[in-house]
Amino acid sequence: MIDIARIEAASFRLAGHALRTPLLGSSFLNEIAGRRVWVKAECLQHTGSFKFRGGWAAVSALSAEARQKGVIAYSSGNHAQGVALAAQRHGAPCVIVMPSDAPRLKLANTRAYGAEVVTYDRARENRDAIGARMAALRGLTLIKPYDEPEVIAGQGTCGLELAEQVTEIGLRTADVLVCCGGGGLTAGVALALESRAPGLRVRPVEPEGFDDTARSLAAGEVRRNARLSGSVCDAIVTPVPGAITFPINRRLCGPGLVVTDDQALMAVALAFKRLKIVLEPGGAVALAAALFHPGQIAGEDVIAIATGGNIDAALFQTALSRFGDL
Amino acid sequence: MIDIARIEAASFRLAGHALRTPLLGSSFLNEIAGRRVWVKAECLQHTGSFKFRGGWAAVSALSAEARQKGVIAYSSGNHAQGVALAAQRHGAPCVIVMPSDAPRLKLANTRAYGAEVVTYDRARENRDAIGARMAALRGLTLIKPYDEPEVIAGQGTCGLELAEQVTEIGLRTADVLVCCGGGGLTAGVALALESRAPGLRVRPVEPEGFDDTARSLAAGEVRRNARLSGSVCDAIVTPVPGAITFPINRRLCGPGLVVTDDQALMAVALAFKRLKIVLEPGGAVALAAALFHPGQIAGEDVIAIATGGNIDAALFQTALSRFGDL
Repeated sequence: MIDIARIEAASFRLAGHALRTPLLGSSFLNEIAGRRVWVKAECLQHTGSFKFRGGWAAVSALSAEARQKGVIAYSSGNHAQGVALAAQRHGAPCVIVMPSDAPRLKLANTRAYGAEVVTYDRARENRDAIGARMAALRGLTLIKPYDEPEVIAGQGTCGLELAEQVTEIGLRTADVLVCCGGGGLTAGVALALESRAPGLRVRPVEPEGFDDTARSLAAGEVRRNARLSGSVCDAIVTPVPGAITFPINRRLCGPGLVVTDDQALMAVALAFKRLKIVLEPGGAVALAAALFHPGQIAGEDVIAIATGGNIDAALFQTALSRFGDL
Repeated sequence: MIDIARIEAASFRLAGHALRTPLLGSSFLNEIAGRRVWVKAECLQHTGSFKFRGGWAAVSALSAEARQKGVIAYSSGNHAQGVALAAQRHGAPCVIVMPSDAPRLKLANTRAYGAEVVTYDRARENRDAIGARMAALRGLTLIKPYDEPEVIAGQGTCGLELAEQVTEIGLRTADVLVCCGGGGLTAGVALALESRAPGLRVRPVEPEGFDDTARSLAAGEVRRNARLSGSVCDAIVTPVPGAITFPINRRLCGPGLVVTDDQALMAVALAFKRLKIVLEPGGAVALAAALFHPGQIAGEDVIAIATGGNIDAALFQTALSRFGDL
């Protein structure tokens, strides 16, 4: 059971360890969007994405015995880093199962945070099965990337902060666009806002071709993606909404939004130029939706959670070469 | 007279208008520096640099009559944008005198904030004379970039925030490295810390060939730079320490540090990769000193103020191409 009390408990354990990320804005972005755009810069969080919140919440909730045996996680890279750093700071052994085609930076960083990295072929192998097998073999605790109550509670702390921040700026109603993979951040933030800022409505944003959550919300039941790879938004390519996250999101979220890969890269270039933050494409889809799909959004203000910034230099240069003049 | 009361008054006027910028860190940067590195990310401030603080402090201190007549400033680009946006939000007309070779982005942004931009030749013309002449002609109030008490007080609000933030993380002593042009931010932060965090010592950082403040501090009297242009760090190329700022900095600062243009670009690339922030070279020299001159710094912690992020996409790509693998 995940509720506001569990998110508050996670927030208490995260205090002094996670960064309170700022809410940024730019009149240039407001002009493009036709309304005020607020960007919660989770790319500035430790490990470069919000995933550190869930990783820390999960590792810090373990018994001393479980912590000593260690943890295992599977991830395309951001959950990997979040769990690896949280485990390292708790002195817990850590194994991370990552796709062999994950961005180089994410693979290197996860190893640098002290984790043992095991790679697999995203197209042929099932990461859940690999994770479960290794967990059983070594007595490791599996920390799933989104279908895990403590992880959802940890991501929800981002929503608690956002509720405080909108109060500070006097904002009462807005759509809150959240980059969505398995739906853990979306669910955590939606639960936090339901209690703390009920005038805000969460809406998941996904890349074209990987809009399982948008289609599932529209259908009222789970829909799968046809493909498992092929988007520049590697961080949020997941096969299907989570068994725990989807019922929460179905109850609390507004309709999903979908952006193209090029729109995500345009948002990367504009975040560079106008906000001075580094986003990866999967961390920029919410901003892309705010900027390029204004007709699908209600109200004078919109909030976009910019979820991560772990992008290889070459891809970032491509985004600037193609869209730096926007 | 500039003292802590004046900085606090500026802080009161800035509340709700300037961003409280976060203090970032990365274990990867700690490893390079051999100590803990804290980065105050002023590039996230409105207009992409700390200069918005001074601009707002100065414009908001004017009488209604002076505000109605308007303001004028001369600047390579960051003070320009800070004053232009502050004037726009106060409904004050604004003229900005900028060098014709200022980065395109800075020129375009200053115009976009509603200012009338007048360009001059940095090598042949004297911006002070141009500014004074136009101010007299139109009854505009001249807002100097650093030798102006309200501007120094505004920049000092960055130091007030830093004093709060070091208290939160339990840090009592450290060198605070500040990117230094005319010395306004350096002086404002030094005054704020003298009162609020006396265990912190400010040290200016400059690019090679433009180390007028470092040499002046060493000599105990003002020294000029031989050249007026030729560094990639355009934001902090000034001819000579300020008449108001230098006595403050001589009293309060430790020795200056000097970095090469390449070290500044390396810091730009590392801030991209490890902190997910966008820095311009002149805004990265303090971080460069923290990373590449560890022998000249005392203590287990060092703080670098990352002062600005207004860099053209092409130069940023050059920094990533050359140093993205660091």
